Amino acid sequence: MHAGGSFVGKFVNLNFKTYFTFLNWMPQALKMSEAEIIDHAGLDSAVFLRIYLLGLKIFVPMAAVALVVLIPVNVSDGTLYSLNKDLVISNIDKLSISNVHSKSIKFFFHISMQYLFTFWTCYLLYKEYSRVASMRLRFLASQGRRAEQFTVLVRNIPHVSGRSTSDSVESFFRKNHPEHYLCHQAVYNANKFARLVQKRDRLQNWLDYNQLKFERNPEKRPRRKNCFLGLWGEKNDSIDFYKHQIKELDKKLTMERQKVLKDPKAIMPAAFVSFNSRWGAAVCAQTQQSKNPTLWLTKWAPEPRDIYWENLAIPFVSLTIRRFIISVAVFALIFFYMIPIAFVQSLANLEGLEKVAPFLTPVTELKFIKSFLQGFLPGLALKIFLFALPRALMIMSKVEGYVAKSTLERKAAAKYYYFMLVNVFLGSIIAGTAFQQLRAFLHESATQIPRTIGVSIPMKATFFITYIMVDGWAGIASEILRLKPLVKFHLKNMLIVKTERDRVKAMDPGSVDFPETLPSLQLYFLLGLVYAVVTPILLPFILVFFAFAYFVYRHQVINVYNQEYESAGAFWPHVHRCIIWSLLISQLLLMGLLSTKEALSSTPLIIVLPILTLAFHNYCKNRFEPAFRKYPLEEAMDKDLEDRPSESDVKLKSFLADAYLHPIFRSFEEVESVEVRVDKRRAHSPSPSRSSSSSSDDDSHHLEDEPSQEEDEPSQEEAVLPLHYEYEPPSDAYHYVAEVLSNVYEYGTEPYHN
Amino acid sequence: MHAGGSFVGKFVNLNFKTYFTFLNWMPQALKMSEAEIIDHAGLDSAVFLRIYLLGLKIFVPMAAVALVVLIPVNVSDGTLYSLNKDLVISNIDKLSISNVHSKSIKFFFHISMQYLFTFWTCYLLYKEYSRVASMRLRFLASQGRRAEQFTVLVRNIPHVSGRSTSDSVESFFRKNHPEHYLCHQAVYNANKFARLVQKRDRLQNWLDYNQLKFERNPEKRPRRKNCFLGLWGEKNDSIDFYKHQIKELDKKLTMERQKVLKDPKAIMPAAFVSFNSRWGAAVCAQTQQSKNPTLWLTKWAPEPRDIYWENLAIPFVSLTIRRFIISVAVFALIFFYMIPIAFVQSLANLEGLEKVAPFLTPVTELKFIKSFLQGFLPGLALKIFLFALPRALMIMSKVEGYVAKSTLERKAAAKYYYFMLVNVFLGSIIAGTAFQQLRAFLHESATQIPRTIGVSIPMKATFFITYIMVDGWAGIASEILRLKPLVKFHLKNMLIVKTERDRVKAMDPGSVDFPETLPSLQLYFLLGLVYAVVTPILLPFILVFFAFAYFVYRHQVINVYNQEYESAGAFWPHVHRCIIWSLLISQLLLMGLLSTKEALSSTPLIIVLPILTLAFHNYCKNRFEPAFRKYPLEEAMDKDLEDRPSESDVKLKSFLADAYLHPIFRSFEEVESVEVRVDKRRAHSPSPSRSSSSSSDDDSHHLEDEPSQEEDEPSQEEAVLPLHYEYEPPSDAYHYVAEVLSNVYEYGTEPYHN
Repeated sequence: MHAGGSFVGKFVNLNFKTYFTFLNWMPQALKMSEAEIIDHAGLDSAVFLRIYLLGLKIFVPMAAVALVVLIPVNVSDGTLYSLNKDLVISNIDKLSISNVHSKSIKFFFHISMQYLFTFWTCYLLYKEYSRVASMRLRFLASQGRRAEQFTVLVRNIPHVSGRSTSDSVESFFRKNHPEHYLCHQAVYNANKFARLVQKRDRLQNWLDYNQLKFERNPEKRPRRKNCFLGLWGEKNDSIDFYKHQIKELDKKLTMERQKVLKDPKAIMPAAFVSFNSRWGAAVCAQTQQSKNPTLWLTKWAPEPRDIYWENLAIPFVSLTIRRFIISVAVFALIFFYMIPIAFVQSLANLEGLEKVAPFLTPVTELKFIKSFLQGFLPGLALKIFLFALPRALMIMSKVEGYVAKSTLERKAAAKYYYFMLVNVFLGSIIAGTAFQQLRAFLHESATQIPRTIGVSIPMKATFFITYIMVDGWAGIASEILRLKPLVKFHLKNMLIVKTERDRVKAMDPGSVDFPETLPSLQLYFLLGLVYAVVTPILLPFILVFFAFAYFVYRHQVINVYNQEYESAGAFWPHVHRCIIWSLLISQLLLMGLLSTKEALSSTPLIIVLPILTLAFHNYCKNRFEPAFRKYPLEEAMDKDLEDRPSESDVKLKSFLADAYLHPIFRSFEEVESVEVRVDKRRAHSPSPSRSSSSSSDDDSHHLEDEPSQEEDEPSQEEAVLPLHYEYEPPSDAYHYVAEVLSNVYEYGTEPYHN
Repeated sequence: MHAGGSFVGKFVNLNFKTYFTFLNWMPQALKMSEAEIIDHAGLDSAVFLRIYLLGLKIFVPMAAVALVVLIPVNVSDGTLYSLNKDLVISNIDKLSISNVHSKSIKFFFHISMQYLFTFWTCYLLYKEYSRVASMRLRFLASQGRRAEQFTVLVRNIPHVSGRSTSDSVESFFRKNHPEHYLCHQAVYNANKFARLVQKRDRLQNWLDYNQLKFERNPEKRPRRKNCFLGLWGEKNDSIDFYKHQIKELDKKLTMERQKVLKDPKAIMPAAFVSFNSRWGAAVCAQTQQSKNPTLWLTKWAPEPRDIYWENLAIPFVSLTIRRFIISVAVFALIFFYMIPIAFVQSLANLEGLEKVAPFLTPVTELKFIKSFLQGFLPGLALKIFLFALPRALMIMSKVEGYVAKSTLERKAAAKYYYFMLVNVFLGSIIAGTAFQQLRAFLHESATQIPRTIGVSIPMKATFFITYIMVDGWAGIASEILRLKPLVKFHLKNMLIVKTERDRVKAMDPGSVDFPETLPSLQLYFLLGLVYAVVTPILLPFILVFFAFAYFVYRHQVINVYNQEYESAGAFWPHVHRCIIWSLLISQLLLMGLLSTKEALSSTPLIIVLPILTLAFHNYCKNRFEPAFRKYPLEEAMDKDLEDRPSESDVKLKSFLADAYLHPIFRSFEEVESVEVRVDKRRAHSPSPSRSSSSSSDDDSHHLEDEPSQEEDEPSQEEAVLPLHYEYEPPSDAYHYVAEVLSNVYEYGTEPYHN
């Protein structure tokens, strides 16, 4: 490893042979069938890939028709040539709708194309929704016995004085679901305990590191200063110090644990209630329990590894207020985000820098450096902001108090999409900040708005083609090269990796990053649908994006990613809605554009389209969405009947007994309760090997260098427990990452040398 | 009766003494407690009265504060005096906000009043919603065993070839609700049968009439011509003719009845499914049954007398399309309603009349008659339209396919409210037709619209005061005098009443006319809230309306009306929503008004209010609305446990056996099945004596002079069956109507003389 020697060799693989084989993965990525992908990576990933395929299905025929029909129509008119003197027209504009004369009869080509494209898109959307819904139902039906099928999350349990929450739950469900209630699991507010466990984990890590150091260098026992983070004070023996600390903390942990389990105040007014049949759980999840509809609220429990435990401790009453505040905050973020950035930028300019550090003045006065800094500093502020945005949106979603990680990711994705819609799409079309746009829109009439936007649409085609290439193509390329994880890994390797365990964590391939990929995907659908009629030449660029992205993500899903949870395609209705919205936007903008072309007589022709599209959406919603929200009784009964002979209530009870125990309690008592857990895990267990520690959005509540312990727990047991989970962990994920990394560079940094 | 003699005496009571006692009912109307009203007239009526009381509670303190605080503030500024030269200012304007200087600091009085009023209204709305919701739950809990508590309406039952719908239902529910399913009742498409029964009823009526004639005048047997409605042809003996016709029809009826009951095509893919416990029914009504969410749709069955049978025959798939078409139609009706009226008016002018009937020219050329006709004819077209409007809206709601009469009335009321909002409220404020307004709004910016409206608000105060007096006060006065029913009764008496039975029908007092009263009520809330800050002098007029209306309707509910069905206050969420909307409108318009007063700095102060109002609405919706939509399991279980000792499944089955049989089948087999029915009716039976035949909206599907038979059926059994229903039919209703009628005039028209 050290042999490469040169500085460059540390980071880059200088063995050029390996580069020739770098596309070898492509044919393999295509071989796997969809059923195999579902088996291998779960339904979420399979449905995610179908979105790209849907993009191809929609845009390939659309591009063919648009290029063959509309381009000749647009080129044949010569408006822009005659205007050539005063306007600078790019060649692309000659192929777009701008080239057609005002009041031309040719606009009926465009209108009929818009009809054709709308119907085509709706047809495919319908087929896709129906397919995904049936895939979801089949997937759920094919699953074995899982805790979440029998369990309902009950929130806002009323407090009855002189009675514990547990008793209330027991008596309420014994009375109202006498034939179906089985048992329940209280929800503890273990957030403080979780922090202690994290601390212990950190100390353990330091201890391991010091012991390793000692092993390598047995003559010198590692020592540390004992005050203020080990920076000064008397020097102690490090190993003894950490051992002592851990011992102290273990005592504290035991006490805290007792406190959480005993103290009635630590029990939240929420519980996971389990039933003896899927039918009973389905009934409880879908009905109103109490006379007061804000009490005893029931909904399906997410699967145990999908639960975001911290949020279960949020009092239910505050949820409405939290959601309201966050929606105001998101609105502000979207429309006023330029204000703080401009402020930071004004601070981070050259004069500001010179004031703070006058000794730099001779350097900054150099012309080259000056211009570089002037261009670089304000941009840096924006880059940092955009980098932090998905993380900020995820934190916002967490504040809203959703209890499932899958829901959190969906909500963050929706917020990010709104941001992109306003700031990337509208922001690029209309100059000015979103806030200025908002102001302009408030002062414009309802018919004026689509006109204002519509008229600048064709002019921005060039910009969006560049955008697709820079953001879309390059983004996909960096995804297959895993540039971001590479950078992250190196940063972590340099800064925080101390032991082998840390490195494993830093190398976690993660899962599909829904909060970032879904919104950008939806933006490309929007661009494609808007420009299909206006400037069809943009479509091939979109096509390349979808095709390339499909292959790359297919490969990543098969070989790299490791889904943290399984929501069985729960994000599909959200994707469907976004595409419908894109259709509506494209229709409105075409209307606006045509009205500036004085083709007003065509307005009634197009106004029918949005109505039809909305009706279609409504139909799809009624027809398919319940499959994503509810669990039909017929289905539940079928599964129950299938299982009945093989299972007794007692067995089921032991199976469910603490399926929904906060994972923190398990990790702590590894030794004492190992037998029970092996049992439980055999039946359903988090996808084991790498769990979630790298899902960077999840630990944003903690400090950056403290991967959250409670999510990481399974990985520590990896060696101890035999794992039988139905998704086999993608066994070559590690190998692939290791290969890529070692392809490009060799492990030059030696983390063990501090 | 005949003694009065003179022509006037025929219609008007000339005995003046009776007029002095005409306010005697007032103290009595106040005596009854709310609990007694619920017992006597049902919860719907009690909740309806509470709306007026709510109006008083909201507006009494509001009027006091507004008059004391705002009028002095408004008067103290003298803007309008200085402008006096070019503007004609009424005295009312001097008391309104128009009188305050632009940019005056005094607007903060108005803004703080708006805050105060909003909070006050919301506080009362909250209390009221909570009260009504608990009244509803208590009312439902206090009811005895009723068929609708155990029954669920299942629609869109899939057709399996080689299997009857009945079998499908049986096996589906046996499988998926094994412990709860009891029995079911198929839904027949009996609309053709119903028409035949109507025809038979008409013939029977003619027969009775002729027999009566014969009895009075035994020497002359009545005869009729036998062709084309008896207008020409050979003369036959009428009694024989009708007897023969009825006999023929009875045969047809038997055949048709057999056909309906036997023919699988007459069985609709819908069924009333009954369960052995309320819990089972509540579960089935609230859950999704089938994998395909558009099949096996379940919802609570309305109570049997609330069902609108015709609509059960509508295929479920067409409902979405129907609703879509109707919403377009309602939109068109609201915004383009002036177009057909203007068209009719242009035809119905004097020149048109002269062209059609040139012989009238000498008469119409007389100056007096000419001006009368010119003023009268166009107005008549409008009046006819406005008279027909509620009926048209009800037909529209029926086309939408709702299966409960209560829902139909609610939907018609909502449509009527939109109409009034646009055409009465906005239409009076902004000159021009609604269509012109719509056009103007589309071309105005979002901030401009509230300005345009806001600025003309104070100027229209005088108009609305007149409106409140003419429409509100006079409307209430005519309600207590029952002018409309009087006119209707006389018209019917003259035109169609032939037998005693006809006359009883014509005298039916009817029930509270929700589709007309609710919208106008809501309009007064809107006027009150909008003008509370702008022109507080309008409030006392509103107060008088609410107070007067409260007493009158209290009296009518106690002594006159006869509720056709009981929806347990299901319309309350609709009323609540309308008042919230009124609040929002008043806030927006105040914002617009203030922005024209250049008090722009106050905008941020008011913009908080709509947000708070919406948040409040949202909270109320979550907190209370489920009480109106769902039936909590806790409640169902409580009732089940209460009943359990007293009832067996067999007893329940016989009780439910044909509770939901189309009433048409019962009326026909009066004799043969009378024992069964007595049993059933003892437990639950339509409010017997007068049922619904006069509820004019319900028979709009039939010809005007053919009161629908199927709804009228119970009245024929009145004498035969002992009735034990929990709402005692208001026994003095008849007496009161008779009294009023005989007070005002004597039964001068002898219907038996043809």
